[in-house]
Amino acid sequence: MLIRSDVEAAYARIDPYIRTTPTVSTETGSFGSRAQVSLVCEFMQHSGSFKARGAMNRLLSARETGELGQTGAIAASGGNAGLGVAYAAGQLGLPATIYLPETAPLVKVKRLLGLGATVRQVGAEYAEAYDAARLEEERTGAIFVHAYDQPEVCAGQGTIGLQLESQLEAVDTVLVSVGGGGLLGGICAALNSRVAIVGVEPENIPTWHSARIAGGPVDVGVSGVAVDSLGARRMGEIGYAAAVDATAASVLVSDEAIVEARQVLWDTYRIVVELGTAAALAALTSGAYQPEDGERVAVILCGANTITSGLS
Amino acid sequence: MLIRSDVEAAYARIDPYIRTTPTVSTETGSFGSRAQVSLVCEFMQHSGSFKARGAMNRLLSARETGELGQTGAIAASGGNAGLGVAYAAGQLGLPATIYLPETAPLVKVKRLLGLGATVRQVGAEYAEAYDAARLEEERTGAIFVHAYDQPEVCAGQGTIGLQLESQLEAVDTVLVSVGGGGLLGGICAALNSRVAIVGVEPENIPTWHSARIAGGPVDVGVSGVAVDSLGARRMGEIGYAAAVDATAASVLVSDEAIVEARQVLWDTYRIVVELGTAAALAALTSGAYQPEDGERVAVILCGANTITSGLS
Repeated sequence: MLIRSDVEAAYARIDPYIRTTPTVSTETGSFGSRAQVSLVCEFMQHSGSFKARGAMNRLLSARETGELGQTGAIAASGGNAGLGVAYAAGQLGLPATIYLPETAPLVKVKRLLGLGATVRQVGAEYAEAYDAARLEEERTGAIFVHAYDQPEVCAGQGTIGLQLESQLEAVDTVLVSVGGGGLLGGICAALNSRVAIVGVEPENIPTWHSARIAGGPVDVGVSGVAVDSLGARRMGEIGYAAAVDATAASVLVSDEAIVEARQVLWDTYRIVVELGTAAALAALTSGAYQPEDGERVAVILCGANTITSGLS
Repeated sequence: MLIRSDVEAAYARIDPYIRTTPTVSTETGSFGSRAQVSLVCEFMQHSGSFKARGAMNRLLSARETGELGQTGAIAASGGNAGLGVAYAAGQLGLPATIYLPETAPLVKVKRLLGLGATVRQVGAEYAEAYDAARLEEERTGAIFVHAYDQPEVCAGQGTIGLQLESQLEAVDTVLVSVGGGGLLGGICAALNSRVAIVGVEPENIPTWHSARIAGGPVDVGVSGVAVDSLGARRMGEIGYAAAVDATAASVLVSDEAIVEARQVLWDTYRIVVELGTAAALAALTSGAYQPEDGERVAVILCGANTITSGLS
């Protein structure tokens, strides 16, 4: 089970390589709530999302154990996870090889190349790219960085929770979007018993919601507007265990609510986030999560690897 | 002459109505410099730019002197200034009437309406809308809020300088975009003799650059990518006097450098600003301003009332 000391160790490890991202206090009653809402601007992190934290911790941990060699890092992701690995490997002066399906959009490929990664496009679906990456890992000894289900990755993501503690005097509740559950699990390990933690998911991709009901991770349907960042088929075991231990809550939001929350954030703070990230805020703006009057709620704005279109 | 105590009085007046916007420290050597660069995220201000500060101070000052009546506020601007006035009047429960040319883009009209303003579209050019606004001021006694050339407006904008002092341990240099010079003048009044201040302008709209050479504000050509936010024909007298007294420097940047700086900010921090705002950062990214090694430079990111397109 991942615990707070794992996250503390991760923080000490990655601190020189990551940004302390700003946390912005908003006016009482913002976003349709009666709460004191703070926005954690993690979208300003290196690589455009929180994934730089977990990837950095994974690689630095492997360096400590002597596993990290000159073949560098491997990942299978055209999204935030791939970008985080590309960033992390670059920081250590090592190559990153990122596997994507042949169908991946050009904008994602370009961003990876921009971070110095080697991009290999294999197969028509993500599963084929994933298999190719694992084969290459075996062949070369490069360090595979999972998008969410590795202890070092989860612990790295959880450092946002420790950052938050150092930035705000007090927090009652943390709202966090859930895909594979790496960020949720990490924050649960970091802040277990200290704050209430709410995992927010699109109705169309309810990995945490379904895992809670089933008593363990299960496959779910994957569709809707947030599929590019939250589109995991099932929650990771590590994140699941940490979230259960921290008695994290589960809230579902509709795709319409996600799109609206993204627009509200732009209208009121001129902040652009990706749709998966907007899910966390949508819990407030849609009323799916209803805080008490004056409740101190931190919303993790975890990524902005998005095209900016779709905002008016 | 506007002085620091005017800005301090403005800050005390407007503080309950404005946001303390976050200032983000970046890595040493960011943006192609060898400096310690901080980004002042004033684009997160109410109404999407710093103009809410000056408008708020103008209206609250008029309320103190008994001039502010139920006819509220008037302005002639489809951009940041109009939005700032609409916000400020709304905070005081008063009407705002904003004059625009008939040619104003629908998106600007919509934003003003969204802030509760009444929009009047008059004439084909800005000058006609301005004249109509001044006539209405005379007729109704509503408070006219100038886009830059009023002491209360300048003093309000200058509160960003005082905020900055409270946020950073030390600043050597402030980079600020210049249109009519209200923000430059306000910051000069606030921080005169305490820091170096650099007014950054597009080569195509050199109001401050030309005023310095001529020994006073003169008309300049108005064209290029930043015309919607920095497109004043000449600098205001109040801002000019404060900038001269503070021996502010002048730097010009090309339109290409402005577009590039906006993209760099998106690529590295996932921050979207308007082109006029990007001018201040372009002074660094283009090398037009070359800080010393380790110089502590604050870049005022003053607005994001922009469509998000044009970013890749």
